[in-house]
Amino acid sequence: MPNEARRTSGFKHRTSLEDARERLLDVVEPHDRTERLPLNMADGRAVATTITAPNPVPNYDRAAMDGFAVRAEDTLGASDHSPKLLETRETEASVLPGTASRVHTGSELPEGADAVVMIEQVDATDETIVVHEAVAEGQNVGNTGEDVAEGQPLYEPGHRLRPSDLGLLRSVGLWEITVYKQPTVGVIPTGEELVEADPDPGEIIETNGLTVSQFVERWGGEATYREIVDDDPAALRAAIQRDLTKDIIVTTGGSSVGERDLIPEVVEELGEVLVHGVAIKPGYPVGLGIVEETPILMLPGYPVSCLLNAVEFLRPVLKKVGHLPDELFPTRQATLTRKLPSEPGTRTFVRVETAQTADGLCATPVRVKGAGVLSSVALADGWVVVPESREGYAEGEQVTVEYWEVQP
Amino acid sequence: MPNEARRTSGFKHRTSLEDARERLLDVVEPHDRTERLPLNMADGRAVATTITAPNPVPNYDRAAMDGFAVRAEDTLGASDHSPKLLETRETEASVLPGTASRVHTGSELPEGADAVVMIEQVDATDETIVVHEAVAEGQNVGNTGEDVAEGQPLYEPGHRLRPSDLGLLRSVGLWEITVYKQPTVGVIPTGEELVEADPDPGEIIETNGLTVSQFVERWGGEATYREIVDDDPAALRAAIQRDLTKDIIVTTGGSSVGERDLIPEVVEELGEVLVHGVAIKPGYPVGLGIVEETPILMLPGYPVSCLLNAVEFLRPVLKKVGHLPDELFPTRQATLTRKLPSEPGTRTFVRVETAQTADGLCATPVRVKGAGVLSSVALADGWVVVPESREGYAEGEQVTVEYWEVQP
Repeated sequence: MPNEARRTSGFKHRTSLEDARERLLDVVEPHDRTERLPLNMADGRAVATTITAPNPVPNYDRAAMDGFAVRAEDTLGASDHSPKLLETRETEASVLPGTASRVHTGSELPEGADAVVMIEQVDATDETIVVHEAVAEGQNVGNTGEDVAEGQPLYEPGHRLRPSDLGLLRSVGLWEITVYKQPTVGVIPTGEELVEADPDPGEIIETNGLTVSQFVERWGGEATYREIVDDDPAALRAAIQRDLTKDIIVTTGGSSVGERDLIPEVVEELGEVLVHGVAIKPGYPVGLGIVEETPILMLPGYPVSCLLNAVEFLRPVLKKVGHLPDELFPTRQATLTRKLPSEPGTRTFVRVETAQTADGLCATPVRVKGAGVLSSVALADGWVVVPESREGYAEGEQVTVEYWEVQP
Repeated sequence: MPNEARRTSGFKHRTSLEDARERLLDVVEPHDRTERLPLNMADGRAVATTITAPNPVPNYDRAAMDGFAVRAEDTLGASDHSPKLLETRETEASVLPGTASRVHTGSELPEGADAVVMIEQVDATDETIVVHEAVAEGQNVGNTGEDVAEGQPLYEPGHRLRPSDLGLLRSVGLWEITVYKQPTVGVIPTGEELVEADPDPGEIIETNGLTVSQFVERWGGEATYREIVDDDPAALRAAIQRDLTKDIIVTTGGSSVGERDLIPEVVEELGEVLVHGVAIKPGYPVGLGIVEETPILMLPGYPVSCLLNAVEFLRPVLKKVGHLPDELFPTRQATLTRKLPSEPGTRTFVRVETAQTADGLCATPVRVKGAGVLSSVALADGWVVVPESREGYAEGEQVTVEYWEVQP
């Protein structure tokens, strides 16, 4: 991206990625808006209260095996030499001394019984069973609350619900749950060269706002994708002010230091620019600020820079605001098929295409011919991150590939 | 899970996980139903046609830098000793010989111009610029189609759309896209002990159908969560037949070899049972079959067994039917804090809780007291898989933790 590289000169100082992220996260508070949702609409949402089990699971003492419910003391001393004979009562609700009652796995333990003899371990007739081995009190019995005790704490605020959690919540008798509302994000594409469709020469179709909005939804937020705003201070000011009701504002384009890069100035006027210029490549001309209490992320207009900054800054802010855990990206180890250069002191993000070969997984950096070419992202399936301390990776070196856009 | 282990005896043969999965996938065909969707509704969907770019990006020759559009030949031989003077025409649409025209990054290259001199490299007055260095034809110019050429192939059928793909598709002028419809799954919970709510002793709240349905949605399918069906062959038959219009049928419960495990028999009657009993733990009493052309997955009723089988069998079938790529789970290396036993010849799946410590990431197996306890899944955040060839892992050993339920 030669033009970006050359323009670096416009930035007096480039903040490290970690510092920049920390400065932004420091001024961001989790919101406190909650809502009640039925469990089948709560997948992926963050729990907002401490959840304890209102009922135990199971809610009764149950047979843990198919067999016969007995009083354990009636089987005391049973062996092949000295088997014990018990009368069977198929339909009885209680087990009297000297009797046994047929039970299935999961069925209620009849009154009086305190153990279950497995069906495989008895000789049964219609009216009797012969027990060859003693069972202890509680053997093959599942007690009330064995899986989940009544009042047992299950989840703390901020736990992000998964399908198995929804099953557990239902099992204790819950149908609804209080979750944090999804954080709201105003996405404002800017640039007088942008159009929604049918570009004339000199015009470009707006795509950054679309991409960022889709990421917001995927990451658990609620995006409002605004109309394109021209490079005009008054229009930009109005657009930002309109979205101060959102949890987060994102602008795309106009974030650098050129003549038409007006957003940092507008933000400085309305609030504070915390960071302008970050030591990452691509994507260094990013700005981070706060207006009243709303964090504002000024993402660069080059599509790849925009995407990268969305992953590095928007995702963690959105997760923090929405009480959502910062989850892992899938990664894999791969061998580089080509040298991968980078500039020391800058964290470099390289799109790679991975393929399984006879020698294992190989990662090939995607060749980029133009500036900020989105098609390179379509070809790539992962990213290799070169830390600030390194001067690239050599051909044949083992690297970690991160998959940012993989789905469940 | 002692009851499961003891019951293994009921299965004559347990198929290996790989064989079982292969037998199932062999009889499953991808469906061919497609639909047109606007791009902002297509995230996560599978592309159904080969997509080529209807328009180039950019759709005009553009300045790649802020500066002055020139005829390269006018700068030939320019140097500090012999600078070239060009007249500037701020408002001209074309660049005549000996003139230059002010341009911004991204703006259209004026007619007649074939290169751009960077603004930093000229001395400019209101009416002239002085060029100190020659530029070559095409220098600092982005040509039409440089990012994406007209007609360039972008995606093949089966590509699962990501936010950045949606941006690229919009950039070439597309608003809609043809995708495969989401595969449909009928989810049928079975078992006369199940109730929807308010269990009496001997009754259990249905949760497996809920959990499986939520997984289906997450994995890119469309679930129909049916009412509970009793352990009655006629009722089970009717329930299966009703869902033969779906791409996949899933039953939960009644899949083992006990008296009340009727589903494999019903499936054998209506179609074919391909596999019954798989060498995995937990979850071995699973059945896989096909009725007419609909694959049917008979998942066990123990919640953890059900979940595990959904991940191991339902997910790959759903992906194949829906043309969706089989994506990666995030993994991490961790040190075991406790010994982890397993039975050789069986693939064992152990729930673990991971925590960052001074010694790195540690994985602690979650203690399970009851049978198929769902609460163990709530406590766990990952799984360790012990291959068939091993007899467990020792305390302190490095293991790979898989995170099955992590979200973007």
